[in-house]
Order: sequence, then structure tokens, then C-alpha cells
Amino acid sequence: MPNERLCINVRNVSFPANETGRHFHVNGITVNKTTQTVESAADGGAFHIEDVYPQIDDGRFAVKRIVGERVEVWADIYRDGHHVAAASLVWRREQDRQWRREPMTHHGNDRWSGSFVPDAPGRYVYAIEAWTDEFATWRHGFELKQKAGVDLNLDAIEGAGMLTKAQCGGPAATAIIVRQCENYLRTGDVAPLLTAELNDAMAESQLRPDLTRSPLFPFVADRPRARTGAWYEMVPRSQGLTPGQHGTFKDCIARLPDVAAMGFDVVYLTPIHPIGHINRKGRNNAVTAAAGDPGSPYAIGAAEGGHDAVHPELGTLEDFRGFVAACKLLDIEVALDFAVQCSPDHPWLKQHPQWFRRRPDGSMRYAENPPKKYEDIVNPDFSSEDAGALWNALRDVVLFWIEQGVNIFRVDNPHTKPFRFWEWLIHEIQLRHPDVIFLAEAFTRPKLMKGLAKLGFTQSYTYFTWRTQKWELEQYLNELTAYPERDFYRPNFFVNTPDILPYHLQSGETWMFKSRVALAATLSSTYGIYNGFELLEHDPIPGKEEYLDSEKYEIKVRDWDQPGNIKPYIRDLNRARRENAALQQTSQLRFIPIDDGNVIGFVKESVDQTNTVVAAIALSREVHEFWFPVGDVEVGVAGDRRHVAAVENLITGERYPVEWGGIRLRIDPVRDPALLFRCLA
Amino acid sequence: MPNERLCINVRNVSFPANETGRHFHVNGITVNKTTQTVESAADGGAFHIEDVYPQIDDGRFAVKRIVGERVEVWADIYRDGHHVAAASLVWRREQDRQWRREPMTHHGNDRWSGSFVPDAPGRYVYAIEAWTDEFATWRHGFELKQKAGVDLNLDAIEGAGMLTKAQCGGPAATAIIVRQCENYLRTGDVAPLLTAELNDAMAESQLRPDLTRSPLFPFVADRPRARTGAWYEMVPRSQGLTPGQHGTFKDCIARLPDVAAMGFDVVYLTPIHPIGHINRKGRNNAVTAAAGDPGSPYAIGAAEGGHDAVHPELGTLEDFRGFVAACKLLDIEVALDFAVQCSPDHPWLKQHPQWFRRRPDGSMRYAENPPKKYEDIVNPDFSSEDAGALWNALRDVVLFWIEQGVNIFRVDNPHTKPFRFWEWLIHEIQLRHPDVIFLAEAFTRPKLMKGLAKLGFTQSYTYFTWRTQKWELEQYLNELTAYPERDFYRPNFFVNTPDILPYHLQSGETWMFKSRVALAATLSSTYGIYNGFELLEHDPIPGKEEYLDSEKYEIKVRDWDQPGNIKPYIRDLNRARRENAALQQTSQLRFIPIDDGNVIGFVKESVDQTNTVVAAIALSREVHEFWFPVGDVEVGVAGDRRHVAAVENLITGERYPVEWGGIRLRIDPVRDPALLFRCLA
Repeated sequence: MPNERLCINVRNVSFPANETGRHFHVNGITVNKTTQTVESAADGGAFHIEDVYPQIDDGRFAVKRIVGERVEVWADIYRDGHHVAAASLVWRREQDRQWRREPMTHHGNDRWSGSFVPDAPGRYVYAIEAWTDEFATWRHGFELKQKAGVDLNLDAIEGAGMLTKAQCGGPAATAIIVRQCENYLRTGDVAPLLTAELNDAMAESQLRPDLTRSPLFPFVADRPRARTGAWYEMVPRSQGLTPGQHGTFKDCIARLPDVAAMGFDVVYLTPIHPIGHINRKGRNNAVTAAAGDPGSPYAIGAAEGGHDAVHPELGTLEDFRGFVAACKLLDIEVALDFAVQCSPDHPWLKQHPQWFRRRPDGSMRYAENPPKKYEDIVNPDFSSEDAGALWNALRDVVLFWIEQGVNIFRVDNPHTKPFRFWEWLIHEIQLRHPDVIFLAEAFTRPKLMKGLAKLGFTQSYTYFTWRTQKWELEQYLNELTAYPERDFYRPNFFVNTPDILPYHLQSGETWMFKSRVALAATLSSTYGIYNGFELLEHDPIPGKEEYLDSEKYEIKVRDWDQPGNIKPYIRDLNRARRENAALQQTSQLRFIPIDDGNVIGFVKESVDQTNTVVAAIALSREVHEFWFPVGDVEVGVAGDRRHVAAVENLITGERYPVEWGGIRLRIDPVRDPALLFRCLA
Repeated sequence: MPNERLCINVRNVSFPANETGRHFHVNGITVNKTTQTVESAADGGAFHIEDVYPQIDDGRFAVKRIVGERVEVWADIYRDGHHVAAASLVWRREQDRQWRREPMTHHGNDRWSGSFVPDAPGRYVYAIEAWTDEFATWRHGFELKQKAGVDLNLDAIEGAGMLTKAQCGGPAATAIIVRQCENYLRTGDVAPLLTAELNDAMAESQLRPDLTRSPLFPFVADRPRARTGAWYEMVPRSQGLTPGQHGTFKDCIARLPDVAAMGFDVVYLTPIHPIGHINRKGRNNAVTAAAGDPGSPYAIGAAEGGHDAVHPELGTLEDFRGFVAACKLLDIEVALDFAVQCSPDHPWLKQHPQWFRRRPDGSMRYAENPPKKYEDIVNPDFSSEDAGALWNALRDVVLFWIEQGVNIFRVDNPHTKPFRFWEWLIHEIQLRHPDVIFLAEAFTRPKLMKGLAKLGFTQSYTYFTWRTQKWELEQYLNELTAYPERDFYRPNFFVNTPDILPYHLQSGETWMFKSRVALAATLSSTYGIYNGFELLEHDPIPGKEEYLDSEKYEIKVRDWDQPGNIKPYIRDLNRARRENAALQQTSQLRFIPIDDGNVIGFVKESVDQTNTVVAAIALSREVHEFWFPVGDVEVGVAGDRRHVAAVENLITGERYPVEWGGIRLRIDPVRDPALLFRCLA
């Protein structure tokens, strides 16, 4: 191979300005620039790239993770033959064109991994690229032959020939390749071809034969609030102090110190829009309203405006912005209710009659879930010929409230609107506002709830509200925290809602309210209570899991400090949550067997492994004495894992040593049904 | 709703010849023809269609099944809201345009299933279609409201309105719809709208709102031989009877009665092509051949021809066709070796020099797997500029042998050629010849072996050849028979090959040879032996798992009836296989715990559930007495399953009752290491 034929292909190197063609010269050596084609692993690329983790339904839906946390990606990567493979993990924001590139490591059995840290909230995609490392393949065979004592002259020339085809990653690598190539050609000694620095320089080569790319896998990096938050559901009309008088945003502001003292992160308001007059519901969902009845806030829209207006009795839009600002001062976020439904006097019915379906007699089609009828509500028709305008109008509603400082939307009954609408809406909004969080209020069949989570809802309501037995709590949490569900379904455990007063709360026992809020606050990193829970409100419509005299249909005034309230208890729980990162995530959870069917035990560990919490929570009223076998719990970061040596009560600060593999504990639920401990090494 | 506006949309109904527009009249009623659009579930269709079974890598590769056997398909199917869903399973041959349609049934929790029976071998696709059954939705709501005593006049009119939009499945359904619609309009009574016959007629409607189709999932329906067969690997050069004289196809024909008497279904011949002279290997793989050495049959091609020629010393192409015909008379199939490699004097090297790579000094690049060198073999270069012509030439080789009556190809070392070549080749061949079977001879890393099976190889070699311990046999079979692997990887258990004389056979003990062939023949529905196994041949190259004086490099002449042979034992095994459908499939297998680490027990059941076999096979030489707990084995078809009552020895016909949950057994491996029983109800 005569020296004068030596040429080196270089890419991503600063070229002299006049070298724009396919060839140029460096140190008197001819350099080629070439292009690279990428093949698809899904369509006959040289490499098979399989069993990719994490992904949801083969990339149809986005994996959900938290910004700033490392995403590990694993895959089987292999091609035919005995070649040395190389692989990169590439990733970018969905709307960017430029890929970022991370190395992947082979762990044996053709299993590879790489990782990256998304540094800003938003929607991303990742993919895996694999190619043949021809120089490493050559070097591997060369060294085997060297050991076997085979003649190597031709092999050395072939190795040097590869140097002339490298497309270097940078000037430093180019210099090494040129130098070692010259060294070999000058001396005829193969040693320069086998140096580690040359191997590294060649590994940087942009010439990637057989380059094959996996399909793109979408993922969302959300801000931490998407995973962690204590929610307080507030019905604004009932925040006033004068009986019979409609609460206002100013009253809501006055409530905030109380809510902040309990340690809540999010205040979620039921709908704040003008309420319809036609077919307005009376107290306890009566079909006709009495004079002065305020109607359901879910019957949205009246002459005063629709989804982008505020109910005049609450105040003005300016007042609402004041409320948002007041929350911000207390480090509380505002969540709004987004209910895609209209009262019969919502302005859209006149402005866009084509968005609504009429019955054969020309009457309006009210919402119904046979045999239930919602005469005060009309659903827009998502299959109308003008549905595109409807979709845009709904998107604009969300954008309007984002303008007012709202970044969290609790979506009412999303499962009764087309999936594709939500997938489109959430995508539209999050591309512009990656901080926006959507909570799906769907209490429906399991597959639908999961489907909504897959298509983009940041968080989801759950069946926790009705799960009371140890076996069913364990089974449900094991389902929620298993892959892939943990990567698309972020639970928000509500203990009650304006629609749900579960049977187990109806006797109003303090220990049960405490047990339920302790379970919600510790099993799930996001949970919520609906106002009144802290006051142990528990009067049902007889035989139903519904509140009697619900404030959905009337104005309530409460004494928020009434005796027997559990506000201090909730405050302590929320403080424990803030102080322990283990409680700020849901999926790193493992149940600990306790030989008492009415005490549930578990361990949670923070994502960074710096914090570990064990908990034992009573599910029945009697005193429980039991052995808590926490001895096999490991604490500490990877490389420095140790068995737990002692535990410290998160509320009282008391410490207990872990001896003989556990601790003996006693729970008197009347005092406190939950024991929470930090684990000490 | 005035009667004169009533119109019915009809599709797939015989229209009067003059009615070619969008409207026509039946019974004086206006009929519209409309078109239907199908949306993709992968891209925002109204329905989510998820967790589809069976499929390989989300439809990237084809599921493998046997023609004539029912394929059950399962999926999660759901849409938003409370509508009644309907779904069809649609399927067709890959090259057809017309779908066949099967009903799907809802099993609760939004899980659906349907099934079909592929009636001819070939490549197919299936998909799932879901749509909203608006009439059933209406009927469901109507009945709920009826119970609740709600006013139903408008609802009835709406239901009747739906009748006018139906696109009927056929004239009978049309007649029912028209009649019941008229009945309602005439009487005003809703009863006609709620009849079962109307419901059924409406379910046939071709109007399928929200019609959503899943991605297409490919599958292959192979002929039964793809799953079931006993293979006999024959080296033709050694089938002669005169020492030192090259065997011929006529000698091979003379061997056939012996092979047929042993009960083999497939005779697989090592390569039958002219053998190269350049760098020909000598005995025991010597680098230089002595005068008269025949060389390796894998060094394919010489002046006499290449892959489409026969080695003159074996006879003529006509002789080969005679061999195929002789096999056919004995109900034996012929498998040929397809080894994509050339001797240095293969005609292609002169005809297509561009298909072969040369080294920097102009010399030919021989095959190598460093530090091993195969000087008598040159691999074509699949990345050559002219690779398209190479691919076509190789396809034509396969087509040539299909012309000669060969329908099974054992492919040598497929893992060292590009995956996409095999995917293309197998697809090309099977589209024209769906009966053709490809066996992948890849002894390499697990992922590559699975990858070849996924991309289309009908059968695959396995690690069984080296698996001897109970735990590793159980683990390996559990892997092979688990979904999805059982649906793409069809094992062919070879006890030995010309390349592999495993250590456990090297002592030549009869019981071990019997144990190994019994394991292969019963654990896997396809298995094979390489000739000489039946004679207990076992002399190795010292320290290696290779045959000494291998007939790969010399001509052998054996006494095929020499004393000590186990031909009768193999004959009995193959007879048991033919008589018991349970042994003609691999994946319906469950291990039965036996309290002896050197006896492996299992049960297999035929696909149609009419035959159940239990087996206990010794893995060590000593006598074993043990309890065989088969009492929980169920026999009989679905709906008539019973616990096994007795077992009958497949070889001796002896019967034993199953009492106290099992049978007490004794194995003396020197007599017979395997006990095989049919289960009786």
C-alpha cells in the first residue's frame, strides 16, 4: 500500500475555508469527506435492536420521567457474525433537530445500556444507534492471531488501511490517527496500530458502517410537581364566613394560611366559571332549583360568560389573579378544574350551535349516563362537522388560564371525550408550556384509566379511594409500581372527593380518617383531600357514597378550626413528606410482611437512594402489637449499601435499634394509626 | 320523523343493474350507498387496541403456527365513554387483498378474543378492527331507562332513525330492518325496535362508526413437518460398502430401508456439490490433502460446477432425483445443506470476481474466525457493490433444488451472513413455495439464534446437544416453550452432528446414547441424529468435542448392523412419536417434580387435547426407584377434563393404575433409561 495513496476521511473538523469539495489536505495527506446513511432496525437494518427499556407499547406512547433524573436505557443489540459492535443512545427534544449522543456499554449476552439526564421539562424522543466498529474488530482478531503466532503482515496493512478511512471525531483524534499511521508506515512495526490512544481515536470515528437506528421512543420529562404534591381541593363558594353568603376569591385568599399550615402544595379549585340558569339543579341534586340556589359549578356558562370567565359572585378575573399571587407567596400552586361541558345557557350554544346535538324534536341533548340524567349540562359534540373549531376553542381555554398563572388542570371526566382529543390537546399545550400538568379525573374501567394515562395525562385518579383491605392495597400498589405501568400512570390518591364519601368514612371515626390520610400520603407521592375531610365530615345520603347536603348544590360555611379536626395530624404527615425524599416518589416501594392482617408495612427509598422510610399503618381500630421485620432493608447509595441499623420516628424523633432482624412495635390507632420511620445505617 | 324521509344505506347487497349512483330504491324506500374510512389504532383512532396476542416484537416478525390449527387472538379493545363496542378479527394471505372476517367476543375487563384456522400453508397477516355499535348502545340505554320508568318517546324515534342509516350485511338483514322500522312507524310501539332479530340484523351493518384498525400482525402457517419430524443426517460419501470407495446416491438409496425401518421422517444430506481442489483439507482437517483425500464437502465448487451441481463421485443430477423419488416411496423427505461459501475454485470466483474480497496483496480472503483459518473456503462479500446479483444467485440455487424435489434446507452457519439477506430469501422462497422449510444451523450466542428464528427460519438448532443436567434441561425447555419464544423458535434437538461429539457421549455407554436420544425424541417434536450415533460411535480428537477421523475429511465404510447398535431402540421411540400426537408438538410441556436429581419427568399434551404422554427419563447410570406424582395430570378435551386414572407404557403396553396421586416407578438405565406412558382417563 504505497504511502501516496493514504487518505483520511474527516468529519466535524475545522477545514481550511477553501476546502469545500469532497477532498482536502491535512499535513500533506488527502482527506475525503463522505456521507453516512442510517438504516432502520424496524426495516431490515444490519442490527437487530430489541427489548428496549423503557418504552410504552413499543413507543406508541411516551414514558414519563422527572427532569434532572437519570434515564437508563437498555436494549439487546446484535448483528450477524463476530464483529465488534458499538452503540450510542441518541436523544433530543421532540421539536429539535439536533440529537445528543451518549455512549452505550455492553453488559454481556448482547445487552447494552446507556443513560442521559433530561435537563429541562418537555417532550423528548430517544433512539438507539448501533454500528460495526471495524477497527476494534480488526484489533480483536489481530491480537488473537498474534497469540496464535500467525503471520500478520497482511493483517497489519489492512489495519493501517482502516485508519485512512476514519472520519474523525475531532482534530485531536485526527492527529493521533495520522501520527500512528505514519509511525507504522515509517517503521513497519505494528505497535503503533495497537495503542490504546489510537483505539480511542478510532472509536470516535464518524464512519459508522452498518449504522442502524431503532424506532424513536418518546418520553416526557416533567417537573417534580408532576410526581410529588399534597393537594387540597377547595370549593370556593364555601370559603366565606357568613352563613348563606357566597364565598369569594378574597375569602379563598383568607383560607390560604390555614391550608399552608397544613403543608399542602396544591390548592385545587372546583369550577370557578359562571353557572347556568336553565335547568339549574337545587339542593341535593334536585331537578328544580329553589330561588337563590347557586346551582352546580359543573353547569358551566351563563350570560356572564363561559369557560374563560369567572363566576361574578366569586369576584373578578383580577381577584382570581390575586388569589394565584397569594398562593405563590405561600409556595402553593393553583389547580383549576377543566370540565368540557356547558350549561344550556353557555354562550357557545348561541355562538356555535353546530357544536351541539339536538334530538329529533329539536330539543337539546342533555348529558346522560342511563338512567342518570344531567339536565343542567350539555356536552359538545366532538364528532360535529365543526369539531376542529371546538378543539381549538378548548385549547384556547387552557391557554387562557395558563396566561392567568395556572399550570395545573384537573380534567373532569376525560374518559367521556375522545382519546385523540386529549392526546392532541396535551401535546399542543405541553409543546408550548412543558410545565403544565394534567390530572385525569376518570373513575371508570381499568383499561380506560390506563389508556388516558398512556396518551398523556400527567397524573391520574385511582381506585385507592375504595381500597381498604391489606391484600387489595398491596395488590393495587404492586400493580401501579410495576413496569411499565409505573412509567406512564402517576397515581394521585384522593381520600375523598365532592362526589365520593366512601362507606368506610361514614362512621366518622378519627382513627379511620387518620389511617386513610396516612395511607394516601405515604403510599403515593401525590395525594389529596377534599375540604371538610380534615373536619371529619361524614354525613351521607343514606345508602350512598355521597355527601348529604353537598356543597356542589349549596353554599356551606364551616368552622375550619372546629374541635376534633385532624389538621395537626395532616400537618405532621406533610412535613414528613417534605423532609423525606423517599415519600416524594411512588414506585420504589416494597411491602414488608407483617403477621397481622390489619397492619400494612412497607419500605420506600428515594430515587437517589439517600433516604429510606419504613411505615406500618393500622387498618383496624384495635391495638396492634407485632413484629416488624425490617432487618433486610438496605440503605445507602450503590457501592455503600448496608442493612438498616436503627430507625427514627418521623413524627416523634424517637429512635429504636433494629435487632434480630426487626423491631417489635405497638400501634394504638386511636392515638395514631401510622408509624413512620427514617432508616439509619 | 316523516315516513317519506326514511332511507336505508345498503352495502354488499345485490342492486338492480341500473342503480349505480349513490341512491337507489328497495320496496319504495330510498337507499344510500356510502363509503367507510378506517382509522389506525397506532395513530389516533377512536379505539385503543392493545396487548395483542400472539405477536412477536409488536408485529415486526411473524408468529409461527401450523396450518389447520386454530389461532386464537386476544386484545384489549376500548374507546372513550360508555358506548357498546364491536370488534372483528380480520386476516388474509400476505399477497391477497381480500380480508376474511371473524367475530370477536368480549370476555370482560375490555379483553376480547376471536379465532380462525389458516387452511393452507403460507404467509398471512391479521389485524383487529373495532367500531362503535351505535344501535346496541342505544338499545342498552333504552332498556335501562325503561326500567327506570323514564319517558321514552324521543329515544324510540332516535332508535328508529338509526335503522335508516344501517348499511346492511345482506338482503335478509335488510328485510328485517325495513320490516321492523315499518312496524314501529305504523304502530308507534317500541317493541319491534327491541327484538333480537333486529339486534342481530343491525350487528351485521357495514356502517361501522369510529372504525379503527390495529397494525397488521404477520404470521406464518407452516405444514406439520415444520414442527414434527425425526431427522437422520447422512453423509453420502460414506454410504458405500467397499472400503476406500466413494459412496454414491445409489448407495444412499440402498441405505433408505434401514433409515425407514428406524422410523425417520427426514434424511438430511451434507453438501452434495463438487468439492474444491485448491487448499483442499486432508484427513482430520490437515492443511494439506494427501493424494486421493476427498476434501471437505463444505468446500463447495470446482471445475465441475458450484451450488447447482452434484459431485461427480456421488453420481448425476438424475441419480439425485432418483434418490429423492426413492425417499418419497418410503414417506421420507430429503433435506439439503445450504452452505453459502465457495471453494477457491468455485466457478463464481471467475464468473463474478466482484463478489469476493481480496487482501491488500491481491490474494483471496479466506474464511476465518480468528485464530481459526478455513483456507479451503472463501465467503462471498454481501456488502459488495454487486450484492444484489449475489442475493439473486443464491435464491436461484434454492429454487433450483426445489425444482429437483427438495423442500427442506438446513442452512449452514446462517449467523455469519446478513440477517436482512435471510429475511429476504426466506420471504422470496416461501411466497412462491410455502411448503419450504429452513433450518438454521447456528450454534452461537442466544440472541443471534433467536434473531434468526424471528426473521423467518422455520426451525433452529439448539443448545440441547450440550445440556445434560436436570436443572439445565428444565430451564432450557421452560424458556423454549414460553410465549413468545414458543411462537417463533421451533427447536430441532440434535444429539450429535459431524462437528459435535459432546463429552457425555465420548465414553460410548449404551444407556447414555439411549437416554440422549430418548430426551431429544420426546422433549422436542423435531429432533435428529447424525449417522453413526446409532452405532454408538464415540472416538474423539483427544480433549475436543470433535470426531476423530471425521468423515468430513475422508470416506468411511461402516457395518450399519454392527453388534451393540441401538437401532431397535430408536425405532421404538419413533414409533411412539408417530402414535402419540402429544409428542408431535413441543410447547405444551410441563415438568413433573421427581424427588431424584437424576430423573427428569414431564407431561405433554397434543394440541387437540386427545393425547397425553408422561415420561420419566434417567440422566445417570444407576438404578432409580422413585415416586412419579402424575395424579394432577388432566386428560380429555375442554369440557370433559378428568384426572388421569391409569397409564400405559408406550413400548411394552403394560398398564398401571394411578393411585394416591401417582405411580411408583423403577428405571434401570442399562435396560432402558426412559419410561414413556400414554395417560388414560
